[in-house]
Amino acid sequence: MENDILRRASAEFFGTFWLTFGGCGAAVLSAAFPELGIGFLGVSFAFGLTVLTMAYAVGHISGGHFNPAVTLGLWSAGRCANKHVAPYIAAQIIGAIGGATALYLIASGKADWVPGGFASNGYGELSPGKFSMGSAFLIEFLATFFFLFIIIGTTSKGAASGFAGIPIGFALVLIHLISIPVTNTSVNPARSTGPALFAGGEYIAQLWMFWLAPILGAIAAGALAKWLYDPAGISETIVVEERVV
Amino acid sequence: MENDILRRASAEFFGTFWLTFGGCGAAVLSAAFPELGIGFLGVSFAFGLTVLTMAYAVGHISGGHFNPAVTLGLWSAGRCANKHVAPYIAAQIIGAIGGATALYLIASGKADWVPGGFASNGYGELSPGKFSMGSAFLIEFLATFFFLFIIIGTTSKGAASGFAGIPIGFALVLIHLISIPVTNTSVNPARSTGPALFAGGEYIAQLWMFWLAPILGAIAAGALAKWLYDPAGISETIVVEERVV
Amino acid sequence: MENDILRRASAEFFGTFWLTFGGCGAAVLSAAFPELGIGFLGVSFAFGLTVLTMAYAVGHISGGHFNPAVTLGLWSAGRCANKHVAPYIAAQIIGAIGGATALYLIASGKADWVPGGFASNGYGELSPGKFSMGSAFLIEFLATFFFLFIIIGTTSKGAASGFAGIPIGFALVLIHLISIPVTNTSVNPARSTGPALFAGGEYIAQLWMFWLAPILGAIAAGALAKWLYDPAGISETIVVEERVV
Amino acid sequence: MENDILRRASAEFFGTFWLTFGGCGAAVLSAAFPELGIGFLGVSFAFGLTVLTMAYAVGHISGGHFNPAVTLGLWSAGRCANKHVAPYIAAQIIGAIGGATALYLIASGKADWVPGGFASNGYGELSPGKFSMGSAFLIEFLATFFFLFIIIGTTSKGAASGFAGIPIGFALVLIHLISIPVTNTSVNPARSTGPALFAGGEYIAQLWMFWLAPILGAIAAGALAKWLYDPAGISETIVVEERVV
Repeated sequence: MENDILRRASAEFFGTFWLTFGGCGAAVLSAAFPELGIGFLGVSFAFGLTVLTMAYAVGHISGGHFNPAVTLGLWSAGRCANKHVAPYIAAQIIGAIGGATALYLIASGKADWVPGGFASNGYGELSPGKFSMGSAFLIEFLATFFFLFIIIGTTSKGAASGFAGIPIGFALVLIHLISIPVTNTSVNPARSTGPALFAGGEYIAQLWMFWLAPILGAIAAGALAKWLYDPAGISETIVVEERVV
Repeated sequence: MENDILRRASAEFFGTFWLTFGGCGAAVLSAAFPELGIGFLGVSFAFGLTVLTMAYAVGHISGGHFNPAVTLGLWSAGRCANKHVAPYIAAQIIGAIGGATALYLIASGKADWVPGGFASNGYGELSPGKFSMGSAFLIEFLATFFFLFIIIGTTSKGAASGFAGIPIGFALVLIHLISIPVTNTSVNPARSTGPALFAGGEYIAQLWMFWLAPILGAIAAGALAKWLYDPAGISETIVVEERVV
Repeated sequence: MENDILRRASAEFFGTFWLTFGGCGAAVLSAAFPELGIGFLGVSFAFGLTVLTMAYAVGHISGGHFNPAVTLGLWSAGRCANKHVAPYIAAQIIGAIGGATALYLIASGKADWVPGGFASNGYGELSPGKFSMGSAFLIEFLATFFFLFIIIGTTSKGAASGFAGIPIGFALVLIHLISIPVTNTSVNPARSTGPALFAGGEYIAQLWMFWLAPILGAIAAGALAKWLYDPAGISETIVVEERVV
Repeated sequence: MENDILRRASAEFFGTFWLTFGGCGAAVLSAAFPELGIGFLGVSFAFGLTVLTMAYAVGHISGGHFNPAVTLGLWSAGRCANKHVAPYIAAQIIGAIGGATALYLIASGKADWVPGGFASNGYGELSPGKFSMGSAFLIEFLATFFFLFIIIGTTSKGAASGFAGIPIGFALVLIHLISIPVTNTSVNPARSTGPALFAGGEYIAQLWMFWLAPILGAIAAGALAKWLYDPAGISETIVVEERVV
């Protein structure tokens, strides 16, 4: 049993490491490369593909959350056991910090490198497009709401079996295509925390937003999904419990 | 039964909200972001991925139409029950207006924001590339014709089971890659209506086009599909009726 | 039986219409749109997604060739019946001309439109990057060889069932990512023929290349595949004969 | 039996030829094409799609490695037979040299072509972004570690059957989105060797790095995966042994 929790937490650690290292890595190293850079489009694919790839790699071990808001949203929908919530979220935070640390080590191996925001999330003056705190809250709430809606829907009874990792990963691509200019896109408190520790200052002061808005959006989606996917009140989806893919 | 209609309409509401919010959101917020913007390519992926993700999330509830032309095209092919047509289309229109409203609230949280066309569709002077009304009509008719052709084909008897959401979503990516310069791409009367209410003026005066051309194209595809996919006249596909994915 | 051939040919007609209209349409209308254009990357996705979408839509009717080289390559591998070769190729040519005609009608609805090469294929002076005839021949031969290799491999016995449309479509994306600068990418004699009729002059004089090189590459792949996928000489793949997806 | 080894080695030869020809071809021919070029984003998709397409085409013959680090990582995880290691790696090296040769022949058919680095990998002065040797080593080690982690995870017992080629191919897209600026992305000693033979000089002197770092990362992932995917020590995955997809 202990060993089972350790394997699940390991899966969440590696998945969230990969998400933070890969998504933020594409932003920090490749987005604005002179002339050939990948821009916001490439960063969007990078974040989404971290989840698509890891969902298929460890979805059958931990469910493939890689995100405290996902864990809490699934828990609110009755799809994550109480005893898994804390170890999952701990593993996700440690993984995100690990991924950000590895990225920092690599990026600082370029002589003239300037960390800047280090792919952190922000609003107001720290928003890429200088969007207000209200805009930031609304887009993070809505994007996480729909992210969880899609996660729960694609893994519910009756959905096409085995496919869920594709729409879930591409949902994260899509969310970045919409919201990078507003908040640099979080929808994931762990992903926000890792780089902010390196960017420091105001980025840390704004971290509350990227915990609060995604988690509220996720819990709202969990509550809605209970009705939409289980109208009779007999949750048969509980059978697959932790398994997202 | 009433509850069943409500669940189906809810699925169509959320799906069309997501389509309009996500697709138009990428266009309004990210397409022309200085230097790092996602361009028409990113907008094309955004629209297509809204459908790919929601088709897998709620396809097993409502069939995943998110578009009055799709509902009418499937109805003309004998694949949508009469009683579902009106509630589906109503939910789609309300969802598209909801998505456009949420986007307006977020976008206006940027101090210097100018709404402009707000991702509305148009022809002539309102066409991104100044294409004529005739070009606009032809491309909207053809694109919707093929969109329905692909939707019906990929969900017909004999097609690979479970995969339909992928070609359907990517068909919408492709349609945008072709036609954004001509009409800003509709193929969906609800998606056209939501932003036009905010853009106002001429955009509303041109809305008739983005209802008429897509619906005619969709109904033509439905009629053809009846022959191509059901040559014996015994529609066995009726079994899956509402289910697109 | 006659009706069966008619349905198959119709599927090939619509598929090749879509391939030519969609792929060349993205190139003609969207590739070089000021600032927001989709570039070669968007054109590559457009061509590939025409095949991905139609393979799933009509693969179970005609096999989803949409390309005389594919038909001849499958025939050389013993995977296409003799009686289907001529009607398929005829339908493909007519479809490609139809798609190019529709595109011409739409594009000419822009006041200041200049047809130019109209997305035709070419070498030497007509190559986008001014590559020689030898380079053009080699890349068309090799790209079509691998295209058929992938088509035959993904539909052979033992390959993952139902997935073939995804690697086949993405193979065409990839082929365009490599070879647009050299020949504007053909690997498909029908796709080359449609636009060349509108571009005229030298583009027609060079058409022989885009029939010869792809067909030779396809037949070579068919011969190789016979050995690689059927080493015992007992073609069990013949059971699925015409079905690509 | 001999024939079986020959078919497996052929599959690895063609797969690695395609990977090197396609990925490096997109970089050399299309990445920096004036105005319409595909940039690092297009090159990333090209490399990943070579693997996605060939994994589905020959995965059921050889397992679809196309990379000495993958072969050694799977071997360290107990998923590749001893007798296959040497012939696979030999076929991969020959295939990569073949692909680079074909690309050289095509590229040199452009009058004013300058080979430059010919898509070779490098660090320090040869790194696209002038990253240090330490940064190069760390990113190649980590990227290959996660690549193998995903390959082993997606093909382990309990993972969704048939899907593995999609996350594996997209993992390579993602890896390129992150690391092209640092090393031009190897994670594959064969892919590094082919072009370096044409670029010569310093590129050959740095080849050791692109053998050492990927292989160490792959073997580390293999060891971890043994515990994560087979905690009881009874490798049931051995049943599918060589089969990656």
